[in-house]
Amino acid sequence: MFELIPSGGVSSAAGFLAGAVHAGIKNSDELDLAILCSEVLCAAAGVFTTNQIKSAPIILSRRHITKGQAQAVVANSGYANACTAEQGLADALEMANLAAAKLGLSPEHILVASTGVIGVPLPMDRIRPGIFKIKPTKRGGHDFCRAIMTTDTRPKEIAVQVDSGGGEFTIGGAAKGAGMIHPNMATMLCFITSDAVVSAEFLPIALQKAVDCSFNMISIDGDTSPSDCVFLLANGLAGNKPFSFDNGEVFQEALNSVCTHLAKSIAQDGEGATKLIEVTVQGAADQAGACQAARAITSSPLVKAAIHGNDPNWGRIVAALGRSTATVREDKLDVYLNNVCVMKQGRPTSFSKQEMIAALSTSNDALIRLCLNSGDGQSTAWGCDLSEEYVTINSAYTT
Amino acid sequence: MFELIPSGGVSSAAGFLAGAVHAGIKNSDELDLAILCSEVLCAAAGVFTTNQIKSAPIILSRRHITKGQAQAVVANSGYANACTAEQGLADALEMANLAAAKLGLSPEHILVASTGVIGVPLPMDRIRPGIFKIKPTKRGGHDFCRAIMTTDTRPKEIAVQVDSGGGEFTIGGAAKGAGMIHPNMATMLCFITSDAVVSAEFLPIALQKAVDCSFNMISIDGDTSPSDCVFLLANGLAGNKPFSFDNGEVFQEALNSVCTHLAKSIAQDGEGATKLIEVTVQGAADQAGACQAARAITSSPLVKAAIHGNDPNWGRIVAALGRSTATVREDKLDVYLNNVCVMKQGRPTSFSKQEMIAALSTSNDALIRLCLNSGDGQSTAWGCDLSEEYVTINSAYTT
Repeated sequence: MFELIPSGGVSSAAGFLAGAVHAGIKNSDELDLAILCSEVLCAAAGVFTTNQIKSAPIILSRRHITKGQAQAVVANSGYANACTAEQGLADALEMANLAAAKLGLSPEHILVASTGVIGVPLPMDRIRPGIFKIKPTKRGGHDFCRAIMTTDTRPKEIAVQVDSGGGEFTIGGAAKGAGMIHPNMATMLCFITSDAVVSAEFLPIALQKAVDCSFNMISIDGDTSPSDCVFLLANGLAGNKPFSFDNGEVFQEALNSVCTHLAKSIAQDGEGATKLIEVTVQGAADQAGACQAARAITSSPLVKAAIHGNDPNWGRIVAALGRSTATVREDKLDVYLNNVCVMKQGRPTSFSKQEMIAALSTSNDALIRLCLNSGDGQSTAWGCDLSEEYVTINSAYTT
Repeated sequence: MFELIPSGGVSSAAGFLAGAVHAGIKNSDELDLAILCSEVLCAAAGVFTTNQIKSAPIILSRRHITKGQAQAVVANSGYANACTAEQGLADALEMANLAAAKLGLSPEHILVASTGVIGVPLPMDRIRPGIFKIKPTKRGGHDFCRAIMTTDTRPKEIAVQVDSGGGEFTIGGAAKGAGMIHPNMATMLCFITSDAVVSAEFLPIALQKAVDCSFNMISIDGDTSPSDCVFLLANGLAGNKPFSFDNGEVFQEALNSVCTHLAKSIAQDGEGATKLIEVTVQGAADQAGACQAARAITSSPLVKAAIHGNDPNWGRIVAALGRSTATVREDKLDVYLNNVCVMKQGRPTSFSKQEMIAALSTSNDALIRLCLNSGDGQSTAWGCDLSEEYVTINSAYTT
């Protein structure tokens, strides 16, 4: 049982503080440099980009998190500090050192994250004084969330309060999109905090599980970034009996829920997006096939463009399914668009195209469901429509 | 040694005739139904879509070509005859039977191809009389090529005359794009004809080789279609000593050249495209990695959108490389954009951004070259930019 905390965010859990400033990394006057910290050392886990090109902060943070502990995050938007060679690594390390000095912590307990343009060195002359101007507070989670935005049009944050029977705990999170979004890793940056006591062995496994059913199930454009990461910090201030493999279900469920909310928010706010696309594949021969099929459909530019135009061109859904690794028998296939059956056992149905267009036009969500009728595998993936605006945003990103 | 035949096409080789009509399958008054035939039975090979959902014509043509022989093709645009269940198979078979009756041939020597909207039965009441109105002629190749177009803005055709030392032969081809284009299979429809004598064993191998370095190296939007196929018909009227594995190099080279020309034409005329993108990956640890890396970059919507906006945002090229299966060492990587080095051994160079923008703006081709400096693998792939127009075309395709 868990409840949404109204206006909750990444600093809602006990003992977490956050803050942000406009350091001048971005030309606009938006927040662009932020700190998230805990009053005490946290058990920590991270999931990192699978891209072979890794940003300097990713390399550094992977090293810092190896012992399963962290106490703070310093993050910036504007530049990703990726493809910046030795200078980039030195800059990421300096960010950790400065944040450690400011907070009175050990540098190896600091995680670093950067997001933005690739291949440009960080403006350290602005970041250095900026870090010292940040004032982390209990209510600073919203500023933190705003400071990591790039092409996002709105912040993505949530916090839930969980009554586990043996006491209450909180999980909060902040994430940003909104391009280069694809499974493994599907997000650019996400930070999750909790005051729960969680065992060091259980924490990374729980995070990976939650990521697999949330961030790894969204796609905006098929690209992955060198900066993608999800961090989970649990500081234990809730004082519960430690969650582990035997008793961690309630923590896992709440964590899944927080991650799924943030993942859907990212998909919904994909670059240029006007609609959330939710694809559920049922009855696949196995789970992996269901997963892959759902992701293939959310990734199809033709499906995405059709949904953008409220065009019930379901043939594209079936074509995208057909190129996935799921085993498909056309004569067993049922397809539903916004809960209306458009294909039954491989045959087109005679649905009303005009009614379907009207239904798609008036809804912010497009629901696609496919029944493969070949087994028990089921999976849901999320994506967004493809609009002219996506192209406009991305054709002049650095010019 | 081979020469381009001015205004050549799919009926340029000796003994091939073609023709087309407007049968009324499409609402516009464009040609939409066509026949290509040879005066004599041909050795024939086909490469078909890897999509698990296969159109009825694909199923039928695969069956008809199993003995390595064919004499004619009947093709239509407007509807793909895919996801049309038993009715679709019956319609494809009827098209073959009608074309056979008209041409005085055996139905199993007829190949059928359809392209267009998925999930709608063919208007057989218009196709039946249409087939009998087609008058195949020696100069009808251009009409044939026009009749298979869907969102293509121009026909894609070519013919080359080859002097093999022991006599001359011709290879001609016609292809159409322009969406759902991705490796395996990268094209929607392509027909290649030759008057060369080619051994039955060599023909399918030669075709697969040519397809692998051409149609399987282009990507427009990452989607594959249930209708994709390439057919090669060789009628032997040139009377040369049969080409086979020991002496077929000259035929293979000319065939590769015809396929590459058509593949590049398809990429260049991708839906909404304004630029051809050519990506060459050199120095990969192996050939497969080079191939996969080149295709990953041509498939990246972020790279494609940046090229559309003449934005030298090369970080996206490196990010797309990083998510490919090629083994990448960032500190060995050199990247060239329009022959200007933008990254050297993993470090950004100080190229002039303004000059690069100007160079990109005035060119119809964007040349991307990456040196991985890790081995001898080399490959080239082609794609096109991503424009607002792509979205506009695809958001209202059936409405």
